[in-house]
Amino acid sequence: MPNISKRGESVPMSPFRKLVPFADQAKANGKHVYHLNIGQPDIETPAYALEQVRKNQEKILAYSPAVGKLSYRQKLAAYYRSFGVALSPEHFIVTTGASEAIQFALLSCLDAGEEVIVPEPFYANYNGFAQIGDIRIKPITCHIEDGFALPRIEAFEALVGPKTRGIFITNPNNPTGSFYSKEKLLALGELAVKHDLFLFVDEVYREFCYDGQDFFSALRLRGAENNVVVIDSISKRYSACGARIGAMVTQNEAVLEAATRYAKLRLSPPGLAQVLAEATLDMESAYMAEVKAEYDRRRQVVYQRLQAMPGVTSYLPGGAFYCFAKFPVDCSERFCRWLLEEFDYRGATVMLSPGAGFYATPGLGKDEVRMAYVLNGTDLEAAMDCLEKGLEEYCSPRVAAIPGVRPNNS
Amino acid sequence: MPNISKRGESVPMSPFRKLVPFADQAKANGKHVYHLNIGQPDIETPAYALEQVRKNQEKILAYSPAVGKLSYRQKLAAYYRSFGVALSPEHFIVTTGASEAIQFALLSCLDAGEEVIVPEPFYANYNGFAQIGDIRIKPITCHIEDGFALPRIEAFEALVGPKTRGIFITNPNNPTGSFYSKEKLLALGELAVKHDLFLFVDEVYREFCYDGQDFFSALRLRGAENNVVVIDSISKRYSACGARIGAMVTQNEAVLEAATRYAKLRLSPPGLAQVLAEATLDMESAYMAEVKAEYDRRRQVVYQRLQAMPGVTSYLPGGAFYCFAKFPVDCSERFCRWLLEEFDYRGATVMLSPGAGFYATPGLGKDEVRMAYVLNGTDLEAAMDCLEKGLEEYCSPRVAAIPGVRPNNS
Repeated sequence: MPNISKRGESVPMSPFRKLVPFADQAKANGKHVYHLNIGQPDIETPAYALEQVRKNQEKILAYSPAVGKLSYRQKLAAYYRSFGVALSPEHFIVTTGASEAIQFALLSCLDAGEEVIVPEPFYANYNGFAQIGDIRIKPITCHIEDGFALPRIEAFEALVGPKTRGIFITNPNNPTGSFYSKEKLLALGELAVKHDLFLFVDEVYREFCYDGQDFFSALRLRGAENNVVVIDSISKRYSACGARIGAMVTQNEAVLEAATRYAKLRLSPPGLAQVLAEATLDMESAYMAEVKAEYDRRRQVVYQRLQAMPGVTSYLPGGAFYCFAKFPVDCSERFCRWLLEEFDYRGATVMLSPGAGFYATPGLGKDEVRMAYVLNGTDLEAAMDCLEKGLEEYCSPRVAAIPGVRPNNS
Repeated sequence: MPNISKRGESVPMSPFRKLVPFADQAKANGKHVYHLNIGQPDIETPAYALEQVRKNQEKILAYSPAVGKLSYRQKLAAYYRSFGVALSPEHFIVTTGASEAIQFALLSCLDAGEEVIVPEPFYANYNGFAQIGDIRIKPITCHIEDGFALPRIEAFEALVGPKTRGIFITNPNNPTGSFYSKEKLLALGELAVKHDLFLFVDEVYREFCYDGQDFFSALRLRGAENNVVVIDSISKRYSACGARIGAMVTQNEAVLEAATRYAKLRLSPPGLAQVLAEATLDMESAYMAEVKAEYDRRRQVVYQRLQAMPGVTSYLPGGAFYCFAKFPVDCSERFCRWLLEEFDYRGATVMLSPGAGFYATPGLGKDEVRMAYVLNGTDLEAAMDCLEKGLEEYCSPRVAAIPGVRPNNS
């Protein structure tokens, strides 16, 4: 029998994948599982956009242009103008989700063995995309104590070596919910220009910035036009994760050319989903305002509930719909598994993502978890009830005495 | 300004891409261009399947499972039974077109620097997918004189070296239309088992086999269950190129596991298109019989018209909807460009794909072209009229005398 490839054996997996079998088992046992572990919102996809798919009268689902339909790219350019970015349709390459945009960006800009600096914790799938391109991720550590604010620019600069080709950030951040200000972006842009680095910015959560903070797109950085490559997606913005429509956006002509070649290789992005995506840009903005207000309410719930839990460290996230929390346990993965296997509160439990998998530096995040507040108010409160009761029980002397379960660093 | 990657600069392109600007210019000049250069059929996508998309009542377009919806994979398994392949839904990984299935297969099975043997001429985008994985293509040359029949098995075996990990064939073949019999498959399967090679078979044209020939899927090869990896797609079968739904199919558990990891990395295949794909498998088989008969008629047209052209070598292709032809010119690319730039017949011309780009061995295919018979009878006849008149004019002494235009090897 032929052996599979070494890389195929070692594709890095999402941190919560290991726990899926335990969640499945819990459900099989009749337990209700509140999923705060994945970024799959319960918000409805805009009805107007779904309606346009139903009205689509194409008789042949032909290849669309490799870079996406011109009509959609024109509307994307108009949408980008709404947040201060002046671009033409040629600057957009429509992709199969943000996932493909990340791959096009990395492959177009970095060769095998080259490095990209990524603040950790980070979206764990970056590891896999880097592996496909044989690219090294150089982590720069952020800390829960200051809400995972970006480190000082000098700390980034200290990591720049001869093989460093870029900095990759997610703003607002998944998994931390951290929001990066205009000033931070300006500093990063300056650094990128100074060292001829690409500045990759995953902006798929740009619509979800709270507390009146203004989102500042990296595409507005003057003088860094050739450095900035933005990753986009309709998945979170319009709760259309299954559509698989994203975009790679840049003003760097050479990057556009290379990414276009990769795009042509796979022929075209999904066609039906482009009908949906285009329709989202014909909609009134009321949908987005409502969705944002809803996430903001959920954010407050998560924050306030965590603040009230003894020994838990967290913060008020500035954007996206994620939050990290530090628990008084020595292994959050074990705790997350225990929640699924051993615990229930009124017949239910909660699924979280262990924090360690979002770090590249070994040993970090072991007492942390990521939560995605993708459930409605009632379910979210119930999920937080489960977490509260779970932590209480897990940290009680009775549970702590079970061999193998050691909640504290004792 | 940061430089892009070397690989980004050198992504291999489809052979006809270079000519697209000339076709665009011809159209801008008011010339009608008959496209025989790409595999985009003019056949309608099944109305029944499109109707199911319109009836889809999902309110949230959520991620589907990374490997595709179970209901779709169940129907795929049933469809595969219709041509003698007994598999379970677990053996299918639904992908974003055949393109993604090729990538999953190559990355899962081959490491950087390893080799795969591919009969040439071959689907040119294999070059690009190999480049992403830093995989080497070892070509084995087929010849127009015998309709691009596969070389003897000894010729394959002679190419197997220490880094050879697989053989990659397309059956029926794009770009040649060649059909590979059960006997050929048996021999290849045996060779794969003998040398522990993967046998990748792109079967996206399996429905289009003519002259009463029975398609024999590589998945039926007894004893080679762990060697065979099949690539599939609904693009050609149901004229749904823009949907972007394919599949990777294998019984090798380790390959399935690795490909599943790659699948999870990009979260899920397109959702709306899976509704369409699933519907195609609920349909009556009348659609396919009609489509096949239509392609068969076109095949006869192309064959007969080519036979009647002086100095042209061709053959009756056994499958798919492609054909190669050898022309009495010394550079088919120049001829194809001339057809677009200099020639018209009754205000129209024809676009073909120069043959050289389908070969990996330098120098081969320079007097050959690929034609896709994706136009209806009337248009196809008109396209062949253009070709006939074009060849006549191009090979006439008057044209041959223009500097730079040398139709013959004189």
